Amino acid sequence: MADGPLSGIVVVDLTRVLAGPYCTMVLADLGARVIKVETPKTGDDSRHIGPFIEGKSAYFMSLNRGKESIALNLKDDADRRIFEDLLARADVLVENYRPGVMEKLGYGWEALHERFPRLIYAAASGFGHTGPYKTRPAYDMVVQAMGGIMSITGQPGGPPTRVGSSIGDITAGMFAAIGVNAALYRRTASGEGMKIDVAMLDCQIAILENAIARYAATGVAPGPLGARHPSITPFAAFRAQDGYIVIAAGNNGLFERLCEVLGRPDLVQDPDFATNDLRCQNVDRLAREMEFTLGGGTVAAWMEKLEAAGVPCGPINNVEQALHDPHVRARNMVVKVDDPVTGTLEIAGNPIKLSAYADPPSRGPVPDLDGGRQAILDWLAGG
Amino acid sequence: MADGPLSGIVVVDLTRVLAGPYCTMVLADLGARVIKVETPKTGDDSRHIGPFIEGKSAYFMSLNRGKESIALNLKDDADRRIFEDLLARADVLVENYRPGVMEKLGYGWEALHERFPRLIYAAASGFGHTGPYKTRPAYDMVVQAMGGIMSITGQPGGPPTRVGSSIGDITAGMFAAIGVNAALYRRTASGEGMKIDVAMLDCQIAILENAIARYAATGVAPGPLGARHPSITPFAAFRAQDGYIVIAAGNNGLFERLCEVLGRPDLVQDPDFATNDLRCQNVDRLAREMEFTLGGGTVAAWMEKLEAAGVPCGPINNVEQALHDPHVRARNMVVKVDDPVTGTLEIAGNPIKLSAYADPPSRGPVPDLDGGRQAILDWLAGG
Repeated sequence: MADGPLSGIVVVDLTRVLAGPYCTMVLADLGARVIKVETPKTGDDSRHIGPFIEGKSAYFMSLNRGKESIALNLKDDADRRIFEDLLARADVLVENYRPGVMEKLGYGWEALHERFPRLIYAAASGFGHTGPYKTRPAYDMVVQAMGGIMSITGQPGGPPTRVGSSIGDITAGMFAAIGVNAALYRRTASGEGMKIDVAMLDCQIAILENAIARYAATGVAPGPLGARHPSITPFAAFRAQDGYIVIAAGNNGLFERLCEVLGRPDLVQDPDFATNDLRCQNVDRLAREMEFTLGGGTVAAWMEKLEAAGVPCGPINNVEQALHDPHVRARNMVVKVDDPVTGTLEIAGNPIKLSAYADPPSRGPVPDLDGGRQAILDWLAGG
Repeated sequence: MADGPLSGIVVVDLTRVLAGPYCTMVLADLGARVIKVETPKTGDDSRHIGPFIEGKSAYFMSLNRGKESIALNLKDDADRRIFEDLLARADVLVENYRPGVMEKLGYGWEALHERFPRLIYAAASGFGHTGPYKTRPAYDMVVQAMGGIMSITGQPGGPPTRVGSSIGDITAGMFAAIGVNAALYRRTASGEGMKIDVAMLDCQIAILENAIARYAATGVAPGPLGARHPSITPFAAFRAQDGYIVIAAGNNGLFERLCEVLGRPDLVQDPDFATNDLRCQNVDRLAREMEFTLGGGTVAAWMEKLEAAGVPCGPINNVEQALHDPHVRARNMVVKVDDPVTGTLEIAGNPIKLSAYADPPSRGPVPDLDGGRQAILDWLAGG
């Protein structure tokens, strides 16, 4: 277990696939002990979802390192007793079943709260535990589609474009983690747990950001903008000689510095580009003017000059380049998991850097299905 | 102020634009009192970023409702005394300056921690407070580009595509909020605050999800996939008669049900589609077969049949449709802010639904620059 602000906290983890496991991974990285309760024989669905390394799911590994596993059949009396012993010792229960499943098992919030008043119960689901769609099944892409983010992602006039990672699941896991931590804080005063109900679709609305403000201001639903900021210009990907470079000149001062670097004082003096509002109105002409000049140099050459001038810019890295970036490495954002089957696997680190705790360069092992059974039973028996 | 798990917590908020204000908005929605300390005369940059309604930034409004504002010049002795009085009363300080700015003001973490040992200090910045790029300026699009998510978002072979909302800022705000809550919990035992250092670039690595596992398994950096899941098939946007529909049949059982709805038992029996792995290998042919049938009906008609069969699916809503969806409304994910200048503005609600607290349908007013000065000074004087 990691040392961290949640050291001493025990999380019973009924989650599968992504949203829930992402939440409990964040809690584990903050020092909580996470006991993953899995279905006997098959376990977490994501154990069977690729990519595989030596037959083992790297997807499962990346989300479940440092957790413990016990296989329990929650319809079997003996296993239910073990599960309830776990709950009696736990601070937090996290699940991402469809609404109603926990009630059918006899573990709905009301029943749990009566029996385990200090237990915090976090549920992450596609549509949440209330509302007309609550029983509908959902996956990331469904909530990305319904929640509006796909309508503002992609090229103007182009085909539907999903955010390339499962932001529907991940944001639900993150908001659930915020809720769990807030509930832990509150419990120190109130002595009582609470239920946290997070819906993936809700989280998509919560991250629409200024697309909502744009709709409110104009009455028109915004569309996709490729790689351009909706209301700041120039703030986009621009074509240089050998690839694209992102330049984000978010205010007049930065725009002036950018034009100096480009050797284009005419752009600063051009009345069409005098303010951010005017630059937004004339965004296409400004991009053409900039690319006319940027085309004369490489991404690396422009990066060096723009950085020296303090103009925010960056290359468009692929995943390999991002993971090997010296800054990303220096920040310990690529950590290792040692595994007897796959060998060392590199995965994402913890972005919450805390002064009070070390940020270890490796994470605990990936649990085999039911691999923690004996240790967990011994712990339960021990007191 | 909202009633919530952070009721009684005072946050001094030096943040500007998006990442930091998003963090303190989440804290405010959890019940914290957020006192926004702004630069005299100009205030938060986002007050001057569109879209505007009646001259007022709807962007600023959506992120800062329910906060209080006081304008302080942190280089002026009298204002510094007020600021330090605030810190003496505060639980949390959040800022998103570039690293080094707080030190220059004499408010670096070491100095703050010595003087205010219980104060929790959260910094959200582009690249964090350590590492070779720490002093570089950053904006959302820069970290989206450098962190790899742009390389996996968009159409195969197409131009660079940014995630349509500022996920670089928003995830940094969310991880900072997780850190603040965890630190509040820990402080109840330790009596001490800690520093939370969150970098936008780090957060982009943290949300790459299975793109990292795919790279680890294959050694090849994954590219963009349009609107298709990388390792589950069929799980994409498909063209129907009058538009696109997302269908996410994540396992064999769902695939069989989907084929039943389509009236295409031949697809289930096709050896090319017998397992998820095989379906991934033959993804293009399966999409063609499905669209051949889907083209014969409307999105709404297919939605009805697929829902009845329990196959996860959804329309691709634009922002207007998403905000008016009856489920989104039932979940109180669109809340109101009343403003004397703009009238009522609809903004995103809080996705963290807590059993112990009501989820009010409106939020507190948007502060005018320095609008809370007298009340804040009176509060400081009062004890």
